[in-house]
Amino acid sequence: MVRIGILGATGAVGQRLIQLLEPHSEFDIATLTASPASAGRTYADAAKWRADSPIPESVTDIEVVETDPEAIPNDVDLLFSSLPSDVGAAVEPALAEAGYVVSSNSSNARMDDDVPLVIPEVNPDHVNVLEVQRDERGWDGALLKNPNCSTITMVPTLAALDEWGLEAVCVSTLQAVSGAGYSGVTSMEIIDNAIPHIGGEEAKMERESRKLLGDFDGAEITLHGMDVAASCNRIPTIDGHLENVWADTRDPITPEGAAEAMDEYPSAALRSSPDQLLHTFNDPERPQPRLDRNRGNGMAVCAGGFRDTSDGIQYNCLSHNTIRGAAGASVLNGELLLEEGWV
Amino acid sequence: MVRIGILGATGAVGQRLIQLLEPHSEFDIATLTASPASAGRTYADAAKWRADSPIPESVTDIEVVETDPEAIPNDVDLLFSSLPSDVGAAVEPALAEAGYVVSSNSSNARMDDDVPLVIPEVNPDHVNVLEVQRDERGWDGALLKNPNCSTITMVPTLAALDEWGLEAVCVSTLQAVSGAGYSGVTSMEIIDNAIPHIGGEEAKMERESRKLLGDFDGAEITLHGMDVAASCNRIPTIDGHLENVWADTRDPITPEGAAEAMDEYPSAALRSSPDQLLHTFNDPERPQPRLDRNRGNGMAVCAGGFRDTSDGIQYNCLSHNTIRGAAGASVLNGELLLEEGWV
Amino acid sequence: MVRIGILGATGAVGQRLIQLLEPHSEFDIATLTASPASAGRTYADAAKWRADSPIPESVTDIEVVETDPEAIPNDVDLLFSSLPSDVGAAVEPALAEAGYVVSSNSSNARMDDDVPLVIPEVNPDHVNVLEVQRDERGWDGALLKNPNCSTITMVPTLAALDEWGLEAVCVSTLQAVSGAGYSGVTSMEIIDNAIPHIGGEEAKMERESRKLLGDFDGAEITLHGMDVAASCNRIPTIDGHLENVWADTRDPITPEGAAEAMDEYPSAALRSSPDQLLHTFNDPERPQPRLDRNRGNGMAVCAGGFRDTSDGIQYNCLSHNTIRGAAGASVLNGELLLEEGWV
Amino acid sequence: MVRIGILGATGAVGQRLIQLLEPHSEFDIATLTASPASAGRTYADAAKWRADSPIPESVTDIEVVETDPEAIPNDVDLLFSSLPSDVGAAVEPALAEAGYVVSSNSSNARMDDDVPLVIPEVNPDHVNVLEVQRDERGWDGALLKNPNCSTITMVPTLAALDEWGLEAVCVSTLQAVSGAGYSGVTSMEIIDNAIPHIGGEEAKMERESRKLLGDFDGAEITLHGMDVAASCNRIPTIDGHLENVWADTRDPITPEGAAEAMDEYPSAALRSSPDQLLHTFNDPERPQPRLDRNRGNGMAVCAGGFRDTSDGIQYNCLSHNTIRGAAGASVLNGELLLEEGWV
Repeated sequence: MVRIGILGATGAVGQRLIQLLEPHSEFDIATLTASPASAGRTYADAAKWRADSPIPESVTDIEVVETDPEAIPNDVDLLFSSLPSDVGAAVEPALAEAGYVVSSNSSNARMDDDVPLVIPEVNPDHVNVLEVQRDERGWDGALLKNPNCSTITMVPTLAALDEWGLEAVCVSTLQAVSGAGYSGVTSMEIIDNAIPHIGGEEAKMERESRKLLGDFDGAEITLHGMDVAASCNRIPTIDGHLENVWADTRDPITPEGAAEAMDEYPSAALRSSPDQLLHTFNDPERPQPRLDRNRGNGMAVCAGGFRDTSDGIQYNCLSHNTIRGAAGASVLNGELLLEEGWV
Repeated sequence: MVRIGILGATGAVGQRLIQLLEPHSEFDIATLTASPASAGRTYADAAKWRADSPIPESVTDIEVVETDPEAIPNDVDLLFSSLPSDVGAAVEPALAEAGYVVSSNSSNARMDDDVPLVIPEVNPDHVNVLEVQRDERGWDGALLKNPNCSTITMVPTLAALDEWGLEAVCVSTLQAVSGAGYSGVTSMEIIDNAIPHIGGEEAKMERESRKLLGDFDGAEITLHGMDVAASCNRIPTIDGHLENVWADTRDPITPEGAAEAMDEYPSAALRSSPDQLLHTFNDPERPQPRLDRNRGNGMAVCAGGFRDTSDGIQYNCLSHNTIRGAAGASVLNGELLLEEGWV
Repeated sequence: MVRIGILGATGAVGQRLIQLLEPHSEFDIATLTASPASAGRTYADAAKWRADSPIPESVTDIEVVETDPEAIPNDVDLLFSSLPSDVGAAVEPALAEAGYVVSSNSSNARMDDDVPLVIPEVNPDHVNVLEVQRDERGWDGALLKNPNCSTITMVPTLAALDEWGLEAVCVSTLQAVSGAGYSGVTSMEIIDNAIPHIGGEEAKMERESRKLLGDFDGAEITLHGMDVAASCNRIPTIDGHLENVWADTRDPITPEGAAEAMDEYPSAALRSSPDQLLHTFNDPERPQPRLDRNRGNGMAVCAGGFRDTSDGIQYNCLSHNTIRGAAGASVLNGELLLEEGWV
Repeated sequence: MVRIGILGATGAVGQRLIQLLEPHSEFDIATLTASPASAGRTYADAAKWRADSPIPESVTDIEVVETDPEAIPNDVDLLFSSLPSDVGAAVEPALAEAGYVVSSNSSNARMDDDVPLVIPEVNPDHVNVLEVQRDERGWDGALLKNPNCSTITMVPTLAALDEWGLEAVCVSTLQAVSGAGYSGVTSMEIIDNAIPHIGGEEAKMERESRKLLGDFDGAEITLHGMDVAASCNRIPTIDGHLENVWADTRDPITPEGAAEAMDEYPSAALRSSPDQLLHTFNDPERPQPRLDRNRGNGMAVCAGGFRDTSDGIQYNCLSHNTIRGAAGASVLNGELLLEEGWV
């Protein structure tokens, strides 16, 4: 069992990490960190547990420590981070320097040249950017990122289509409120309403997708050449990001060909990877957030509504934003790091 | 005062028509029609009134008649139709042949060559297609249509941009449940959910927008040459369709130029036209359905979120789908028909 | 394995029954019935499957038959019924007469003197009313009912309090839309809204609760003497009925005593009974539908918010209305029938 | 025109006060106060305007001042307060001492013996408690309160029933999220959910209703003797509090008698009082929040669902919680203070 820690364990993604890591057969929760206000309290006391399953008994009495290299035991090998991005930017490099391997969901440093941004089923080879990172920064530990929740929903479907030569992607998202954290969207803002912009989200999708689908030649990552334009909307759903995608391709593509490529797209041989990564539907009214977000224990991506367009195809995709799109993505990256010998 | 009738008066759009026409200074409600099951009953009895203002007293005791030329008084000059499209297809031509002028919201016949499809602020000259219609069909009356609610939200904003030469439009919609009628979307389908397809809606947006922005040379309408691709989603809002638009233009366009063109786009000199047709926001989080759907008494269109793209711009737009997008659109077309001497 | 059938298998409760019975270790799904329009089609074709887990493969190809004694195989021993009550009233007695044992969720016949209305953890001895039923009606089979979903939420908590002598109960419900079936509540009716009445529901709660807590002396059931007044509201939640209860008791009762009695109230030794039937919370903001409806796989009842009143106590309770309140209740009654030798 | 000020003008109730007071024919907005962080900024800049109508032009450029007697002009005669209760407790007495007349919606001091708690249609004579207040406190100004939004919904209906002798009231509320202020309820807390407790709300309903229906003999208010037990729930609606009431009376009462008494209950002769205060429905499914909250411009109270109980009757009532229940209640009290010569 690998001893692990969770950074930012009291927040919404932190609670999801605990739901996923507590029963995990390879990982053993050894330490939980949070802000100074929570340090010294038991986890049950510090976290206002709001998940839809009871708090696991094994974590209730763990004493929360500060998110600080000094406070984390030396025998912890792997850290999962769901820190606010400004806190992540301040503390993650220090932890990596101090020798910890960090699988992070925080948005800081995702586009740094020597920081791998990884979806294990899509670009597992990018994990080797860590060699460049260690060389350049002189770190004993490592820092690896998973992408933003809206990016992670779309990119596996694009990966399945890239054999036709992706040239341009237009994407409109319908995102659940949990993506903004527990208090990120007030009820007055969203009941009987929608918000047509999510600060920073459009830019994240436009940049991160090109890095994820880019080539790594052993020395550096070349961004994919496709043009990506995103429009991000918040809607009144709890979990599950639904996205409308238009993909223009160099070679002619058919809806049937696209669906077949997705159905056959391989999953990864990691514990948390679903048996089938991409599920496609014939019914154009699917996928839907409430009905389909839990496919593959929340780790699958669903797609449907394939239609011809003048320059390619359009379709819809969906994933569970706090599992596949956040906590589960970090756990999966932890499994990859372990598998590849970085932990 | 023009004596008017409402066809399909008990449905959701029919109730909106009554809310708009009952206090109207030029129109006098003389007859209300509905299905055979409602005929012979008072309106208050036949309609399950579900609007958010009380049923107007002047209509409660009107006896509902069948939607049949025989049942409608001869001294009624103008009919507003919100019939189901199959009923509309069967009965509207017979009414026009019998001499009635029909301003219809029903989706049948919208793309017929000799049926004008009109938004008075956008293509008022298309009303003159009625001359062709009368010539060809030998009708004493007339049949004029307003477009679909999702089309009507986008087209005024596109009209303001066509000076740059529209080449391609991609649009993703977030549509309110009222667009499907009172019983069109069940609560189990939509609470904590979204549906990424609305049967027939994508095709309507793709076709109707090209007719509305087409040229009428006195003899026929040439469809606009732009390519339109739509993806239509239902979300858990009551009223107000929000849309993400990408518009590729022949000439270079800037977000500022686009917003200014919209702000300056003229309204029409009709009673129900808002003083300002298009409202633009600097705040990228606006427009929002609940906050902005009632601008201009529900007859304005709002836009915001203007951003550069590689081939044009992207932006968001919104209108009230059962006022500007349905009942109000029909009323406005009735005012245009009166103004232009067709009634 | 007992061969079982599901009557009304395509509806919302029917789909829940399939979710619960397909993996059941004692029951084997042998036949599925539905309306004549569905008969002859495969289940996958006849049912529009809308559950949030995929349709089980073992049922997709079962040919649906009519809900008719002739159409149901003789070697089926136990039928689970989620028929509309008018259909249930017509066909359930015929099935019981033909020798089938029927565990029914339908509301017909629940108050009949010789029909047991049973919650296995509360009044398992009432199952023996079946002896009276067989005597009087000359049936080889049997008909047993579970109560209404709102009744079933409250009654286990009342059962725990009856040692103090229940005299009067006032209950206000906040009920989820799934309780009305898939199409029972339209989205226009309930988004940003609540409906302060559910036809027939108040009367069901007032009557059924007195039968469930009544005494069976081997010959007949005496209704409990308490006075029950209910007010039933529909609110915009998917699953989970929340109820505010005021219970007046003969003997003085304290909030602590009430909570303790509930915590210690025994569950039943049946497969689908939860280890702990009643969960109480100290946090007055719990239980909440989305957070707590899945306790005990949806078969537990939660309670909280205990407060003194002048004549007793008030508190809140919650259960999953389509599991504990409907399909799961029928399955549990089937297990009791098997355990007690009626199947 | 009376020059008025709004204390706490940037909050949710403050914005409602501006919507109601800006077009008011007797009041002229002279000053707007907010927290120190907002002081010195224009109102448009300090308030994040989120109402569903545009910000009135006449207030956009008003410079916001601190909520401090020093900062408020002397020629302002009447202040409307929607301060947080702790701020209200600190500053309202100082303002009254400094000579200002304050009509306050804040919850502090509502139960103080010498502070009138008033609904003008119910207990207008209580305004004269201000004489006691001035005597005892030596103030030149005055402090008057309106009750809590959930109390104000129920009390006018109880006032109409008190001729039968109210003995005990049980009330269960279904409250809209706007009652908690703009950020009071997060979307994660309430979508597909309900919360069975609102801190302090139950106690407010239980106390305030007895003061409002109490007798004022010129010297002191005697609380009404009825027993009140409340259970307060938050549900996913934007505006409008719906309540289930059970009222036990000394004399026998019928549903018809109760409804008739409510229909005939007089309104007040004040500008913002609706022509008819109480609207009753025969349809037991009404009133509903979205359909009925705007009756009488949001100042009416609706009731329905009357049923016999063993000791009295049960019924439902509804009002718009931020108009009749908050901002409109304060404005109405301001009109009463003006009418009665206190301003």
